[in-house]
Amino acid sequence: MSFVGSGNVATHLAFAIKKVGIAIVEVFSEKPENAKRLAKEMDCSVAESLGKLKATDLIIIAVPDSKIKGVAGQLPENNSLVVHTSGITDIDSLSGRKRFGVFYPLQTFSKQRAVEMQEVPFCIEANNEEDCNLLMELASRLSNNVKRVSSEQRKVLHLAAVMVSNFSNHLYALANEILEKSNLEFEFLLPLIKETALKAIDVHPNEAQTGPARRNDISTLEEHLEILKDFPEFKETYKLLSDQIIKKYNE
Amino acid sequence: MSFVGSGNVATHLAFAIKKVGIAIVEVFSEKPENAKRLAKEMDCSVAESLGKLKATDLIIIAVPDSKIKGVAGQLPENNSLVVHTSGITDIDSLSGRKRFGVFYPLQTFSKQRAVEMQEVPFCIEANNEEDCNLLMELASRLSNNVKRVSSEQRKVLHLAAVMVSNFSNHLYALANEILEKSNLEFEFLLPLIKETALKAIDVHPNEAQTGPARRNDISTLEEHLEILKDFPEFKETYKLLSDQIIKKYNE
Repeated sequence: MSFVGSGNVATHLAFAIKKVGIAIVEVFSEKPENAKRLAKEMDCSVAESLGKLKATDLIIIAVPDSKIKGVAGQLPENNSLVVHTSGITDIDSLSGRKRFGVFYPLQTFSKQRAVEMQEVPFCIEANNEEDCNLLMELASRLSNNVKRVSSEQRKVLHLAAVMVSNFSNHLYALANEILEKSNLEFEFLLPLIKETALKAIDVHPNEAQTGPARRNDISTLEEHLEILKDFPEFKETYKLLSDQIIKKYNE
Repeated sequence: MSFVGSGNVATHLAFAIKKVGIAIVEVFSEKPENAKRLAKEMDCSVAESLGKLKATDLIIIAVPDSKIKGVAGQLPENNSLVVHTSGITDIDSLSGRKRFGVFYPLQTFSKQRAVEMQEVPFCIEANNEEDCNLLMELASRLSNNVKRVSSEQRKVLHLAAVMVSNFSNHLYALANEILEKSNLEFEFLLPLIKETALKAIDVHPNEAQTGPARRNDISTLEEHLEILKDFPEFKETYKLLSDQIIKKYNE
């Protein structure tokens, strides 16, 4: 198997694959330094160019979404199964190949943190049944959480993932900014952030909803908006989300 | 020490206090059944009315914010230290007392979940130095994370807490709704939700920001908005938060 890409997704997947005893034979990346680093870690060689990637059982393309189609178009024509790892990209972006599919790990990967790959949901799709089974088997060696998911469904999952991860993180950043202005440390919020997330695992989010908007506690909402008077953007976010919560639970 | 209130905050605090070997002598609640339940668990008596609460070293008022002042006004006049547990309520709401303060645990408490009280930040305030120290000492027996915080700062913390907890949970609920319409289970998102929160502990939220808006990936943003075309409210939220992220990181 080979990898195209050397970013966070490629790196985390490659390590997980190596760990279960599957050999990676080649790595290619637009960034030669990163390719070298990953190839060294995988104890494999660096491909000179996309066009020179060896034929192999599986080529995993883990590059930015906008580059997937272009990368696939440059691969040598052969019988290798080619998959991408993107949430939002249609399987048909690879339809120039004979055998193609999707191998999407629904998780946020970062340099700084190890990920419990066993828990990561892998969303699998392929253009034929046999390859779908092959990808399901591979994913099952990495994770206990493997599902067949259509391109349509995967896009919805990706959107939902943006909401719970990117947007939540943006709220953390807004909160951090507000705290900084009052000389308060972001660390105050960490146990709460952790508990809010862990609670979602136990309790349906509608039942877990608490706070002033949930209670339609106008006096607290007004106090908060007063604190936000010098932060017009935050104020808009605060109002929009609070209004939605009020409407959902109090009407 | 006594408790007024028998909800989640009162119950979690009372259990934590009992656990470190401090006796609770009385409980009062507007809801007699709940008062009885908590008193039984604390092995103490139920006060007949607020006016009949015995003089004791400390009375912790853990009731809805809007009721704190009213409760304090009905307590017998004596030398007991009286504190509330609210994030948003000014310490002066208790200024009818001789000795008063704030004992605010910055965490979300729910019936269904045990909380690691040792990690919970306790925000302490009192109208005199001696009582402040007394409350700091008590809180230090429950938690390793005790701070003196002014009423002004506490309100900012409370606002920030709403953003990272209530609003994040609202995003989970929105995501859940979108998934349901596509017959996808919310469970897909749980490892991501957990990892996003745990990452905040390691990585500053500005550095942790990822996703299509962070990359100004217009094509993905458009695909997401297309999926949301039948959810006008979600679309508004998606656009507002994405625009903020784009502006913050790409201008």
